[in-house]
Amino acid sequence: MTSLPEIIRKKRDGLLLTEAEIRTVIEGITDGSVGEEQIGAFLMAVYFQGMEPEETVVLTRAMLESGDSLTWEGASLPIVDKHSTGGVGDKISLPLAPALAACGVGVPMVSGRGLGHTGGTLDKLESISGYQTRLSTQEIKEIVQDVGCVICGQTERIAPADKTIYSIRDITSTVESVPLITGSILSKKASAGLQALVLDVKVGEGAFMNDMAQARTLANSLVRVSNGLGIQTSALITEMDYPIGRTIGNALEVIESVECLKGEGPHDTEELVCALGGELLHLVKKVQSPEDGFKAIQKTLHDGSALQRFRAMIEAVGGDPSVCDDPTSALPKAPKLEEIKAPSKGFVKHISSRELALVALELGAGRNRKEDDVDPAVGLEILVSRGESLEQNQPWIRVHHRNNLNSDHIARLQAALSTSHDMPSASSRILEAVR
Amino acid sequence: MTSLPEIIRKKRDGLLLTEAEIRTVIEGITDGSVGEEQIGAFLMAVYFQGMEPEETVVLTRAMLESGDSLTWEGASLPIVDKHSTGGVGDKISLPLAPALAACGVGVPMVSGRGLGHTGGTLDKLESISGYQTRLSTQEIKEIVQDVGCVICGQTERIAPADKTIYSIRDITSTVESVPLITGSILSKKASAGLQALVLDVKVGEGAFMNDMAQARTLANSLVRVSNGLGIQTSALITEMDYPIGRTIGNALEVIESVECLKGEGPHDTEELVCALGGELLHLVKKVQSPEDGFKAIQKTLHDGSALQRFRAMIEAVGGDPSVCDDPTSALPKAPKLEEIKAPSKGFVKHISSRELALVALELGAGRNRKEDDVDPAVGLEILVSRGESLEQNQPWIRVHHRNNLNSDHIARLQAALSTSHDMPSASSRILEAVR
Repeated sequence: MTSLPEIIRKKRDGLLLTEAEIRTVIEGITDGSVGEEQIGAFLMAVYFQGMEPEETVVLTRAMLESGDSLTWEGASLPIVDKHSTGGVGDKISLPLAPALAACGVGVPMVSGRGLGHTGGTLDKLESISGYQTRLSTQEIKEIVQDVGCVICGQTERIAPADKTIYSIRDITSTVESVPLITGSILSKKASAGLQALVLDVKVGEGAFMNDMAQARTLANSLVRVSNGLGIQTSALITEMDYPIGRTIGNALEVIESVECLKGEGPHDTEELVCALGGELLHLVKKVQSPEDGFKAIQKTLHDGSALQRFRAMIEAVGGDPSVCDDPTSALPKAPKLEEIKAPSKGFVKHISSRELALVALELGAGRNRKEDDVDPAVGLEILVSRGESLEQNQPWIRVHHRNNLNSDHIARLQAALSTSHDMPSASSRILEAVR
Repeated sequence: MTSLPEIIRKKRDGLLLTEAEIRTVIEGITDGSVGEEQIGAFLMAVYFQGMEPEETVVLTRAMLESGDSLTWEGASLPIVDKHSTGGVGDKISLPLAPALAACGVGVPMVSGRGLGHTGGTLDKLESISGYQTRLSTQEIKEIVQDVGCVICGQTERIAPADKTIYSIRDITSTVESVPLITGSILSKKASAGLQALVLDVKVGEGAFMNDMAQARTLANSLVRVSNGLGIQTSALITEMDYPIGRTIGNALEVIESVECLKGEGPHDTEELVCALGGELLHLVKKVQSPEDGFKAIQKTLHDGSALQRFRAMIEAVGGDPSVCDDPTSALPKAPKLEEIKAPSKGFVKHISSRELALVALELGAGRNRKEDDVDPAVGLEILVSRGESLEQNQPWIRVHHRNNLNSDHIARLQAALSTSHDMPSASSRILEAVR
């Protein structure tokens, strides 16, 4: 067996690691026999030298096998999932999981919490009274078989090697490494025993990746490695400059999700749900093309079948289903509302998703540290759409807050809006597909 | 204050670190507040991105200041030292320290133990009955002032940051980094409060560096950084293909050292002692040129003055001074001797220092792990010189062993000798000076 220093040396020198060598590292991380200084040095060597796709497949598989996986023997449904690299106002999972379920696929969607400027699906769902996100493996399987979908948190036993590696990457400045990002995302997703996966790789000021070349590199790595793990996978690279939909904040995003499930959501939210869902339906051969999949998903949003699955999922995990009927009444509300007005007339050219996200975070909608609590009620409601014309003094954003909105927040929100004299041309958030 | 992850990120991205940032790392390593995973990642980032000389000066000074230093206020002697990057049969320190003392400079020579194929000065001296290598700071100062020189081990309080970093470099494959090697060597050497330092940078199969370009890079870094610390420094790059002198093994090398101190040592041993000592005498302006320094050192080897200092030093640390009169009788002897014979007639063209060192190590002369004990008595005596003519079946090497010499050792020793039909031209070990 190659020794740890020798494995680190090989990666340092840009040599290919064997399957046995990569397993030595990951198994040693899992059982604690590899020193933390060696993990730090190994991760930095990977940062500099990268990994070939075949190495990343082995890395991901070893991380996956460091913990438990779901198995679906005898299940009648194709099992699928979606992963987003994280954006602002990204509530896509909430309408997407039930819409897919309504199309006859199973969706065991294991999600995370928000950190920094990006929100988390679990935080959003927990604004629904009674919604339990901690489920056992058995409960996840039963709900998927009964309802078709469930969105819940991950157990301690999913990819423990990833937990260790992730916490070390965070303090050693080795986060921005494509093979390590790939391994981290896919080891957790693959543990759900998926047949197909679609990745929403976001690019822009509100995303992890700021430029298209980086996003393409990550999307290609994810698709190649995930297929290498035996999961039918494609990725959509989507624009994340402007916030998604009309809301940022936990309860506000649930309201928008219910509107989307009633066919009344913002155009861009619905487009993302349908495009990502359409990819999955095509990957599992439920439809002939992604475009046919798009239409199939869209139909479930407009005929009530997706909303019915959402209601059943909420009931299955102990949540209050009345959120599906009158979400505004059923969800926590912030005590204060304040509207910010447009300083001048013009067309809405840009709204800075990053600045809005940071203000929402400071109002309490997100967390700076893992231990922080989030406030479900606070957030931002965007009252205008991109390209829409705006009069001077017209309210363009409504702030839901607990009396902690200050003049700095207001100035930053005002600066987040850009207008122009000419009407910007309409555009889709879907920039590229990687299949 | 810049955070640790941010400092690691800057080095990872090839940016210059500030003095405060480098001190944050080293002070955090010393007080244990920097995580081991962060040290591993930082060292690997330095491995890839290097450090500018000004960064290395700050690194070295911070490592030096993590522990205690000797000070020499009021001392009448210029304080000097030599450091070798490690070779095979390298007993140069033993004659050099007393020769320098005889020339009127003070030599507080803090040395180390052998590891792997290279020997250690302390191991050699400890083959002298009673020789104490653990001295207090006060004892070191007193002996240097009385005798002019002392060779001893380093205390726990010398450069503790280097101890931590070195042990981590060893298991993270970050040993071969010029700024890290520079910092490690010079932080320990500078703690002796030196006015001048000469470096013996060895290059060849028996050395740490195998090619001249690497050796030049290291020599330049050492000289530049050491001068940056305020120490007058030069380096000699010296050849380390053929073993130095006639002996490999602890007691055997002490015998050769005493011969050298009597002006009867092998030519190459004497040349190295005089050249390195000559550099130091020139650096502290005792002589007009390194060549004059060479002659001054050589004189002390031939007039008995260096041997007298060696005797006084041994007495000062409790060792048996009779080693200066009859070293063979005074030192431990191996129970078995075996001579290896030349397979054919010819001129001695090459003897593989690396192979001889590895056999000596296996016979017990060295250690594989820090915890191992060494056997003072075993080793190899080379009976021929480079360029000498050799008859078939003439003994060319004598093995001192404890009955553990096996046929594999004999075969490897036989293969270590190369002969040629033509007489090789004489050559000096001194390849280049870096001043």
